[in-house]
Amino acid sequence: MKKMLVFQTDFTYKEGAVAAMYGVVKSVDEDIEIITATHEIPQYDTWSASYRLYQYIDFWPKGTVFVSVVDPGVGTSRRACVAKTKNGYYIVTPDNGSLTHVDQHFGIEEIREIDETINRLHREDNGAVSIFHGRDLFGYCAARLVSGQITYEEVGPVYDTRLIVRHEIMEPVVKKGQIEGMFEICDPNFGNLWTNIPLPDFLQAGFRMGDRIHTLIYHKDQIVFDRTIPYYDSFGKAPDRSVMIYNNELNRMAMAEVVGNLCKDYGLSYGQDYKVVFLHE
Amino acid sequence: MKKMLVFQTDFTYKEGAVAAMYGVVKSVDEDIEIITATHEIPQYDTWSASYRLYQYIDFWPKGTVFVSVVDPGVGTSRRACVAKTKNGYYIVTPDNGSLTHVDQHFGIEEIREIDETINRLHREDNGAVSIFHGRDLFGYCAARLVSGQITYEEVGPVYDTRLIVRHEIMEPVVKKGQIEGMFEICDPNFGNLWTNIPLPDFLQAGFRMGDRIHTLIYHKDQIVFDRTIPYYDSFGKAPDRSVMIYNNELNRMAMAEVVGNLCKDYGLSYGQDYKVVFLHE
Amino acid sequence: MKKMLVFQTDFTYKEGAVAAMYGVVKSVDEDIEIITATHEIPQYDTWSASYRLYQYIDFWPKGTVFVSVVDPGVGTSRRACVAKTKNGYYIVTPDNGSLTHVDQHFGIEEIREIDETINRLHREDNGAVSIFHGRDLFGYCAARLVSGQITYEEVGPVYDTRLIVRHEIMEPVVKKGQIEGMFEICDPNFGNLWTNIPLPDFLQAGFRMGDRIHTLIYHKDQIVFDRTIPYYDSFGKAPDRSVMIYNNELNRMAMAEVVGNLCKDYGLSYGQDYKVVFLHE
Repeated sequence: MKKMLVFQTDFTYKEGAVAAMYGVVKSVDEDIEIITATHEIPQYDTWSASYRLYQYIDFWPKGTVFVSVVDPGVGTSRRACVAKTKNGYYIVTPDNGSLTHVDQHFGIEEIREIDETINRLHREDNGAVSIFHGRDLFGYCAARLVSGQITYEEVGPVYDTRLIVRHEIMEPVVKKGQIEGMFEICDPNFGNLWTNIPLPDFLQAGFRMGDRIHTLIYHKDQIVFDRTIPYYDSFGKAPDRSVMIYNNELNRMAMAEVVGNLCKDYGLSYGQDYKVVFLHE
Repeated sequence: MKKMLVFQTDFTYKEGAVAAMYGVVKSVDEDIEIITATHEIPQYDTWSASYRLYQYIDFWPKGTVFVSVVDPGVGTSRRACVAKTKNGYYIVTPDNGSLTHVDQHFGIEEIREIDETINRLHREDNGAVSIFHGRDLFGYCAARLVSGQITYEEVGPVYDTRLIVRHEIMEPVVKKGQIEGMFEICDPNFGNLWTNIPLPDFLQAGFRMGDRIHTLIYHKDQIVFDRTIPYYDSFGKAPDRSVMIYNNELNRMAMAEVVGNLCKDYGLSYGQDYKVVFLHE
Repeated sequence: MKKMLVFQTDFTYKEGAVAAMYGVVKSVDEDIEIITATHEIPQYDTWSASYRLYQYIDFWPKGTVFVSVVDPGVGTSRRACVAKTKNGYYIVTPDNGSLTHVDQHFGIEEIREIDETINRLHREDNGAVSIFHGRDLFGYCAARLVSGQITYEEVGPVYDTRLIVRHEIMEPVVKKGQIEGMFEICDPNFGNLWTNIPLPDFLQAGFRMGDRIHTLIYHKDQIVFDRTIPYYDSFGKAPDRSVMIYNNELNRMAMAEVVGNLCKDYGLSYGQDYKVVFLHE
């Protein structure tokens, strides 16, 4: 397999961190191809890091190694790990919730804590221990793994997958005549909100394309949206500024304000505080 | 030739779309080198998509395959196509105006509509038809083409190049003592405005470096700028905040506010509503 | 060695300049791997360009060729050059201060002015001389160098390294019971300020982890910050919004406002106008 690493971080390109991290990778093995998934995960947002991995991981060739560095707990006791997923990928990441969605949707087969005595960069001229783990720990260890300098087993000791740090996710609930879920993420370009309700479950609950659907949004038990809106397959079918339901690119139900921004215009966001309920009229 | 794809979109890196699209490319053929032209085309702006392709395409090796996904009409009947240009490139794009400038300046030799029955990604676990064409259609088809899995002829059926969707572009007009053109694009970092008037035509109209030139800007028949400004070859020759004419990197005439932002400070923009006239004093 | 170029510019991805420049590189030699360090250096900021090179250069494999194009003086008489550093890298850049920190920390072994008669792109259809040096000069020359089409000696004539344009940098000064330095850069994501004071000098001045340190910041001789703040190894040890001293990823002393933005909240910035003094209580 081609030596390739796919990176996502919250570093941005505003400073030299990405370039330093990529330099370490190339210093381990010049033949590693570096691919940028994104460096614009919202700062410290391990929930988004988790969701983005889930969003794109399964489209990559089996065996691909991903590096995710959104690490608000750097310097604390959170584990640095390499997870092997049941659908055949490796993720090098702090174990801080970033594995939540991949674990939920695809499963983690095994997880190992990075042994810093062998898989961390120690530079003579670097004196004291640095706290830039993206560069010295995650990028370095991933490069060693993908280049074959270490096997997956040599990453470090296995630990129990039940110890993986997970964000809480409310599972969708189908009841008679309604379905409940949560907003899992925002599409930041358009302000659309994506639920965790799969299309098949939605259909099974009896909803059909073109239906007008009573939609309730709760923010912590408080109703913040209560309207009857249509379910369409194309934004072109609803008038501008109207709110509609659609089926997103991951085949989950989503909501949009046509030619608008649902998040901003309605003051909504995502996470476990947001519950959405679709009911038959 | 090296397997290489050059991408431009309006996706930004704020979510996982780019990574999913690139994953599909690598799943088709790991040897394809992916190059990011930009993912910051202004949202839905097929005019800018068109201009940017024209701006950079000719600097690439002959045979390079470009993927442009700015697609406000996704899900409508607009064609998904691969254009073969007269100067030797391939462009995979929705046929929605994005080919306007390349067609005008270099010419389209032949165009084919993508046959979705063979050149679209259908995933078992993807259930219903997705509307993410960047990932499942344009990226996938381009990867198949550049990897040699299909020939250009196997993209799909040819259609008449006269059917290509084109934005209207006012051609520059040389009259006695004056030249007329339009603002084609803004340089968003500096707020400079680039006209479609080629340097040779400008010179032919009798203007010379150092001349002070009477400059009129019309927005839909309304004069919005009427001043006499100099034509220089370097920004250093005009005082700060003054407006000047210069010759841009594509050898067309352009206007700048020195150490300022002409677009913002003068409320100007680009497109067919903006006419610019240079007259002899 | 692998053919590889690492780019930093202030172009952003908002227009087609990066794509045009990369196209020229690939037209010189398709086998050159192009790596983006960043295209988000603040506009015209040769100081930041200089600092970022210093921040990451030494993490790359020896022999790597870097291209830095932050070039406010394009079109003036500033030299276009290729510098060979004492730690084994090449930097293709305008000689305008961008080499300051690399010179200071690693040293420049030799510097050559690019001979534009052979190492500049001249295109038939490009008519008049373009002022896009990133595309036609720096990118083109770097590609020729890394592809082996020219040797380093064939870049152009050597000139005296004493002629290199350098920004002024105040050296850290250790006195009895105190140490003085300057703010060299801001970490724009977090608003942290990084000094040029190395950790060993700081320790030698008698400061220890956990100390409370009297800290004075001068902006041009004016005291703009005068507080006693702690020195910690982790942000988690100080209360939110408090200001603390820490040791950054380059082993220099830095200051942060915990879960805040020191630059913005305290109106501070970097450069030779900012002096910082750490004193024993």
